[in-house]
Amino acid sequence: MPRVVELAGGVGGAKLADGLQAVLGPDLTVIVNTGDDFVRHGLTIWPDHDTVAYTLAGLDDAERGWGLADETWHVMDALARLGEDPWFRLGDRDLATHLWRTDRLREGWRPTEVARQLQARIGVTATVLPMTDSEVRTEIGTDEGWLEFQEYFVHRHQTPEVREVRFRGVETAAPTAEVVAAIEAADLVVIGPSNPIVSIGPILAIPGLTDLLAKARRAGTPIVAVSGIVGGRALKGPADRMLTSLGREATAAGVAALLAPHLDGFALDTIDADLEPEIAHLGLRTFATDTIMSDDDARARVARETIAFAESLRRPASVPSAS
Amino acid sequence: MPRVVELAGGVGGAKLADGLQAVLGPDLTVIVNTGDDFVRHGLTIWPDHDTVAYTLAGLDDAERGWGLADETWHVMDALARLGEDPWFRLGDRDLATHLWRTDRLREGWRPTEVARQLQARIGVTATVLPMTDSEVRTEIGTDEGWLEFQEYFVHRHQTPEVREVRFRGVETAAPTAEVVAAIEAADLVVIGPSNPIVSIGPILAIPGLTDLLAKARRAGTPIVAVSGIVGGRALKGPADRMLTSLGREATAAGVAALLAPHLDGFALDTIDADLEPEIAHLGLRTFATDTIMSDDDARARVARETIAFAESLRRPASVPSAS
Repeated sequence: MPRVVELAGGVGGAKLADGLQAVLGPDLTVIVNTGDDFVRHGLTIWPDHDTVAYTLAGLDDAERGWGLADETWHVMDALARLGEDPWFRLGDRDLATHLWRTDRLREGWRPTEVARQLQARIGVTATVLPMTDSEVRTEIGTDEGWLEFQEYFVHRHQTPEVREVRFRGVETAAPTAEVVAAIEAADLVVIGPSNPIVSIGPILAIPGLTDLLAKARRAGTPIVAVSGIVGGRALKGPADRMLTSLGREATAAGVAALLAPHLDGFALDTIDADLEPEIAHLGLRTFATDTIMSDDDARARVARETIAFAESLRRPASVPSAS
Repeated sequence: MPRVVELAGGVGGAKLADGLQAVLGPDLTVIVNTGDDFVRHGLTIWPDHDTVAYTLAGLDDAERGWGLADETWHVMDALARLGEDPWFRLGDRDLATHLWRTDRLREGWRPTEVARQLQARIGVTATVLPMTDSEVRTEIGTDEGWLEFQEYFVHRHQTPEVREVRFRGVETAAPTAEVVAAIEAADLVVIGPSNPIVSIGPILAIPGLTDLLAKARRAGTPIVAVSGIVGGRALKGPADRMLTSLGREATAAGVAALLAPHLDGFALDTIDADLEPEIAHLGLRTFATDTIMSDDDARARVARETIAFAESLRRPASVPSAS
């Protein structure tokens, strides 16, 4: 099995990760965005990590799209009775994860250690790595000023127009040793069908990360992305509106244009096949398939097809010309 | 209605408070021990305050003796599944209280403000005041060294022999302005049937507090205590064993001896009526009644009788002799 690294945000990235794990087992490493992480009620919450880890453990609530299946809401309901507005709904079982994590971080564990230990305890076969152990916080510039990501995303239901995006703290962040090793060891890298701006963006913004990807490509590791925009609509979340308001094209081609510098190939949905020439024009190979991962079989199929597509792009490592 | 101040710890003090509130309504102020307070999972937990406040709001679980009625345990069960040992069981609804409180404290509210606001939100008629806004932590000296109170009380099930008790931080603690005003305004002060060493002890150890009580007595305010030891047994908790291992008598008379310097009178159970002469010998008036507060009627009856007993001890304020 090839060793595959996926860069991922939440739901879309998690579905592809689930398919990749079904095919690859422990040969999959997912590097997750931590820019959405935040603290609420003093608890450290990692939305993207947990969505991916819960999905890979088979514990996710597929219908709701976040959190755990068979969840209850007694704590939040009681908070509401105390007069609070629990706009960030944390399920009872999910809260246990946050309590456990916050305890470990308070004890001085590195986020990567906390993540790996949590994955072991809930039964994740693959490896899920936070993109960095440093604090990076995605902030959304709107007409009403800068909003913390979750304020924009959950509390304000993504309604404010997005004028600008920044990743506070990213300048001094570094990829972890585990992230570096995973990319260096990868046979293929897949950028998942996650929001290219606020899910993939923070990962690529970590100093040194795009250099690591470039070095891997030079060493013969193909890098492909899977579009999270299908028929001009984000499958989940505000990526389409965000692309538009930031002056980008809200299409698979718009995503491809954003990520092109880092890619060899781009997978998109068959309904967007008419965009293939435009994407090819960016210098990318393309592959069109049914990218809707509605069930386990579809996830595994898209995973297998993405792996095969990437494998087909493998070139011999470029040898520096003797001079 | 007389304005009554009760000094209280957890369950026993809460039952009497409940009876007093039924009789007095808003004319009751309960000053609660904060020495048992602690931080778990980053959440600030106030066992005695919450037992009293939940009881006064009619939300307590009478059978369990702590926490809320109709409680669920999803968070703790999920923590256990993560491999943790949740020896301090926090119910789901109870957790909401701790989350809410911890948020307010983090925002910089004084503990007294947090307490009063919480009471307003859950519907407490009386006033419940933390004994201090400073951090005081009861610690138990055992043959195995010093243990934090909850470590001794909950985790170790009160099994280690108690050699010594200390209240860390009490030297620099001060009674709050609210506590001072309540004692100054009180027509009667009642020391509830709580553990005299670890529930009442910390309150009396606050610098200036016994002086406030002495000043109130000089001004004509009777102070009485109700025994929490009945027939040589603590009604709840380890007070009996603690008294013995600290070289005290584990009887109502032993409690009376401990508290005598601050008291005019001492109420005890009729089954301990044979101890009345011994207690009278301490200079205290006594009153024997059925002190077991098994239901609302019994609570109100003990409250009424305790108020009447204290009223009967009222003396004219001592007038400094003109010189």
